[in-house]
Amino acid sequence: MRLPSGFLASGIHAGIRKDKSRPDLGLIVAPGGVPAAAVFTRNRFLAAPVVLAKAGLKASGGRVTAVVVNAGCANAVTGREGMAAARRVRRRAAELAGCPENEVFPASTGVIGVVLPDELVRKALPGSFARLSASGMDAISHAILTTDVGPKVVQASFVREERRIRVVGFAKGAGMIHPDMATMLAFVLTDAPAEPGFLKAALRRAAFRSFNAISVDGDTSTNDTLLLMASGKGGGTTMTSLDGEEAFVGALTKVCRELAWKIVRDGEGASRVMEIVVTGARSDREARLAAHAVGTSPLVKTALAGGDPNWGRILAAVGRSGARFAASKVSLAAGRIVLVKDGQPAPYAEKDAAKVFSLERVPLRIDLGAGSGSALLLAADLGHDYVTLNADYRT
Amino acid sequence: MRLPSGFLASGIHAGIRKDKSRPDLGLIVAPGGVPAAAVFTRNRFLAAPVVLAKAGLKASGGRVTAVVVNAGCANAVTGREGMAAARRVRRRAAELAGCPENEVFPASTGVIGVVLPDELVRKALPGSFARLSASGMDAISHAILTTDVGPKVVQASFVREERRIRVVGFAKGAGMIHPDMATMLAFVLTDAPAEPGFLKAALRRAAFRSFNAISVDGDTSTNDTLLLMASGKGGGTTMTSLDGEEAFVGALTKVCRELAWKIVRDGEGASRVMEIVVTGARSDREARLAAHAVGTSPLVKTALAGGDPNWGRILAAVGRSGARFAASKVSLAAGRIVLVKDGQPAPYAEKDAAKVFSLERVPLRIDLGAGSGSALLLAADLGHDYVTLNADYRT
Repeated sequence: MRLPSGFLASGIHAGIRKDKSRPDLGLIVAPGGVPAAAVFTRNRFLAAPVVLAKAGLKASGGRVTAVVVNAGCANAVTGREGMAAARRVRRRAAELAGCPENEVFPASTGVIGVVLPDELVRKALPGSFARLSASGMDAISHAILTTDVGPKVVQASFVREERRIRVVGFAKGAGMIHPDMATMLAFVLTDAPAEPGFLKAALRRAAFRSFNAISVDGDTSTNDTLLLMASGKGGGTTMTSLDGEEAFVGALTKVCRELAWKIVRDGEGASRVMEIVVTGARSDREARLAAHAVGTSPLVKTALAGGDPNWGRILAAVGRSGARFAASKVSLAAGRIVLVKDGQPAPYAEKDAAKVFSLERVPLRIDLGAGSGSALLLAADLGHDYVTLNADYRT
Repeated sequence: MRLPSGFLASGIHAGIRKDKSRPDLGLIVAPGGVPAAAVFTRNRFLAAPVVLAKAGLKASGGRVTAVVVNAGCANAVTGREGMAAARRVRRRAAELAGCPENEVFPASTGVIGVVLPDELVRKALPGSFARLSASGMDAISHAILTTDVGPKVVQASFVREERRIRVVGFAKGAGMIHPDMATMLAFVLTDAPAEPGFLKAALRRAAFRSFNAISVDGDTSTNDTLLLMASGKGGGTTMTSLDGEEAFVGALTKVCRELAWKIVRDGEGASRVMEIVVTGARSDREARLAAHAVGTSPLVKTALAGGDPNWGRILAAVGRSGARFAASKVSLAAGRIVLVKDGQPAPYAEKDAAKVFSLERVPLRIDLGAGSGSALLLAADLGHDYVTLNADYRT
């Protein structure tokens, strides 16, 4: 897939990973710099690259020329040394890109507690720049992967002022899949013309119902980053306000949602994903509490792995979530099968319920009967593959 | 083990479970009725027996004559029918015990969504009363088990006013071990003389650092119950205020802590238990948030199952917990091995850390360097046996 016009990318092996067959250094360049916006992990342990990326984006007024992303080392919980290493990489990339340091956006994924081997990265960077190409999507989408089954790339397009505008995104797995391979990273590139403030507002809206609605294991990493860059090469008037730009927000949301779905489906040895919709809560916040309790409950997730329509566990999770409701008003359905109605078991055939719970995508609808708050959460199951991936490493 | 004086117990097979070799109906009788106090699950879906037990204890002014506890059916999410069934059992037990209905304390564990087969229970109750004995501890401690490895019984004693006072407790597993077998039930009996208000205060204090500090999987069931009864047969003046009664509170806490430890160690196919101590938080509440995030993180729990000293996952969990602190002030130790000091990796030998993480009881100490709040949490690991128990049932 070609990148949106105005972007070049590459992916090479810098030596951070030992396996020479796998690229570990990705580079995106938007020559001259373009407007950008990002959302970051809310974990209190921010990795050095996240600290730099946040500060740089603020100092540059939302402008990015180059993105330097590496796999194999998260450079998190590495103190001053880690920060110095990240700064040295940023400085070298700025020299090569011919831009201010603040317009270089770093991102890392990999081992926690190990300082980025920045000399390896700095030595490899000229090669990264030499390989930049408008068809570099495949190379960079591979360079950011860790234990992902494969690259995750999604695109959407729409017509605005008689021009076709493209939105292209790629990402790597959520959840801290391996002890040494953490982090959700997602990059969305568009040729739409937009101000940084517009991008920020659009990204927040799109992220809320996509990346913020996924849970593989409830853990957020030290490095999670979602970056949106807009080259403007698609032409047209610059977007400054969300009003009237529903087509762009729609395309951006679609790309983010598909990436989120791929991340959950592909994450942590998952075999099945719940799509949890909570309605009738006293507020959206309480709906999210209920959805989160269900989506992160090991008991619900293991039952899902077994394809077991175990609604007792689902209700028990909702009951302890902190959402307020009357038990006698609660209903629960899986697909079209009503399992519980007004707090009492509904009549249904066990085999019909089992059929829904054996789908790849299990739709759960929980109505609390207490208000009009709602929430959506995608959550993976928890089976033997998850334990194998997460327990049997390093031992 | 003999029951404290003033109590009789029995355990028989009533037919709720199909397996005739396993008892499923337990009975405790304190002839004439005795002061009691209880704490219950905070899950919004309260099982019928929990609703009745709570209301009964309130109406009787904290007085219990008979405890009727069954395994094999939780009688939860069963609406009016379930409540009517529980009431019929209570009425029959009150007739046989010769006490007001409010002095019968019901408790159930087992399948959610199935109404208690109360006719079976009512038919079996005369047999339960006939078998009551001061040496019925063994029988009742077996009758309440579900997938527990074995009965959990703990005792303590102390001297008060030159008399030896006994405190004896027994419990069944925490966590919703099987889809059809939920609930933590614990019963503590003492021959100490005490007022109901005193028992309530002492029980809350003891529970706070025992049952409230355990997490197998973060799920609380619809039926969790902890009951304390005091016969007064040990003699001495009646205890009315916690002041000066440290010996009793100490013995009670010891019994509760040992039961809690046994429950975690024995629960959910666990092979290893973390003892998480958080200090230096801005408040006890924030310390509990941090401990809870670590103790319920599937990533931390799977690493623990693998014996992997993966401190990156522990810090990542603390970082997203909601507790406020500066990353540069955080320290983490496992046993005597300091893993992280002031937010930076400390020098340690990997094999020394691995040794601590392969213990049956892994002591983790997390200091947030932000205040004087502290918390303790016991949490089990999450390995293949957990998944097998929880995913592979019914399929």
